[in-house]
Amino acid sequence: MRAVAGIPIVRPGDDLGRLVADALSDHGLASGDVVVVASKLLSRAEGAFVDLGKVEPSERAIALAKAVDKDPRLVQVILDDSAHVSRSAPKVLITRHRLGHVSANAGIDTSNARPADVAPGEWVLRLPSDPDATARAIRATLEATFSVSVGVVITDSLGRPFRNGSLGHTLGLAGLPALSDERGATDVFGYTLQHTFAAVADMVAAAADLVMGQGGEARGAAVVRGLCFEPDPTASSEQLRRPADRDLYA
Amino acid sequence: MRAVAGIPIVRPGDDLGRLVADALSDHGLASGDVVVVASKLLSRAEGAFVDLGKVEPSERAIALAKAVDKDPRLVQVILDDSAHVSRSAPKVLITRHRLGHVSANAGIDTSNARPADVAPGEWVLRLPSDPDATARAIRATLEATFSVSVGVVITDSLGRPFRNGSLGHTLGLAGLPALSDERGATDVFGYTLQHTFAAVADMVAAAADLVMGQGGEARGAAVVRGLCFEPDPTASSEQLRRPADRDLYA
Repeated sequence: MRAVAGIPIVRPGDDLGRLVADALSDHGLASGDVVVVASKLLSRAEGAFVDLGKVEPSERAIALAKAVDKDPRLVQVILDDSAHVSRSAPKVLITRHRLGHVSANAGIDTSNARPADVAPGEWVLRLPSDPDATARAIRATLEATFSVSVGVVITDSLGRPFRNGSLGHTLGLAGLPALSDERGATDVFGYTLQHTFAAVADMVAAAADLVMGQGGEARGAAVVRGLCFEPDPTASSEQLRRPADRDLYA
Repeated sequence: MRAVAGIPIVRPGDDLGRLVADALSDHGLASGDVVVVASKLLSRAEGAFVDLGKVEPSERAIALAKAVDKDPRLVQVILDDSAHVSRSAPKVLITRHRLGHVSANAGIDTSNARPADVAPGEWVLRLPSDPDATARAIRATLEATFSVSVGVVITDSLGRPFRNGSLGHTLGLAGLPALSDERGATDVFGYTLQHTFAAVADMVAAAADLVMGQGGEARGAAVVRGLCFEPDPTASSEQLRRPADRDLYA
């Protein structure tokens, strides 16, 4: 597993698959590799910037912002990207994103959101619109460029209930199965295992965080080599997300 | 990152640090390596087996077992190891373990619990009593054997709210910081990062699951090489667990 160096600051309209392929040109890829890309790079390529100075918060956003002690314009952007509010408390706003996962602040990035070549302002950066689709596009570019069969995982660093600290989770994927079906697998005594599904893509996302780090796009991608998986052209990150109506913690 | 082959079936009373060190004798260890050990191996070394045939369920266990459609004797063992019930539903019993983490069935293993050399029966296997302490003991054995400075992470495969599939989480650790403090780190634009703590030990636990797999003790350990961390003799898995009174999902 290694970080991919040499990806430039991504600009709106960039072909991200091409940028990653160029950065990989020295090392190349082998069939079975999984390429992990930080969702922030997709957001930048899509130009998913919002200028808070132009946001008009609704009454709902203003009331919620007061309850959680956040900027009402930021709360409006969070609500725009959310299906529902999961939990709120002072300084905390956790929602189910329209993409289906649950996270703080709908994944809106306020720390590093300035569009390239634009003066610092009140810019924030939303999550990408369709990480699975972009993962498929990146995979197609990489497979055509290097004549290999690979997987692609799009990640974001998320917090979790019960535990402190954030780590990489899968927002989108292509080629790699989201889950590994362990039903019927037998252990060393020949018993049948209890755990039925292993969250393989999230393992990859968490592992890649070790080399991608938290800061900056210079290490916004990684390659994980040595996994055994059957290429799955129909793979989707959907399988990783438990619907709210089947979630005891929704 | 690689799985450690050659650890025998662990028996009650075994010196687990010695068994792991012996299995590593061919490859050795380098300073900075992190050795990941499945908690099930600790449970077996401690002889943490319970014969359901000898368990007398309490009235509370009987009532709860009826509600969740589980064996009341198993529910009794789960309650014995739990601080409180987090959620219950038919076929689902999620508790905060006395060790502080939240999981299904208090981590009781019913699939592979037969003590070595004992006929199949109604055996289940509890989690180890003090994974941090055992991690420190394993670390001491490994450091003395190989004259290196290493980290040790004890893992179990857990499910999670919001998401399908299980993956490795940290139950105990030694030498390796649980969290990496990212406060004050700057990104490529010089802004300050929002995410304050990265759950490094849980990243290691999830990554190791990729090579340890879910089945059997033959691959009950792994070595992760290439991390950068300051050895921390006071490290504890405690930092990873959010206390119930500060958890919006408790």
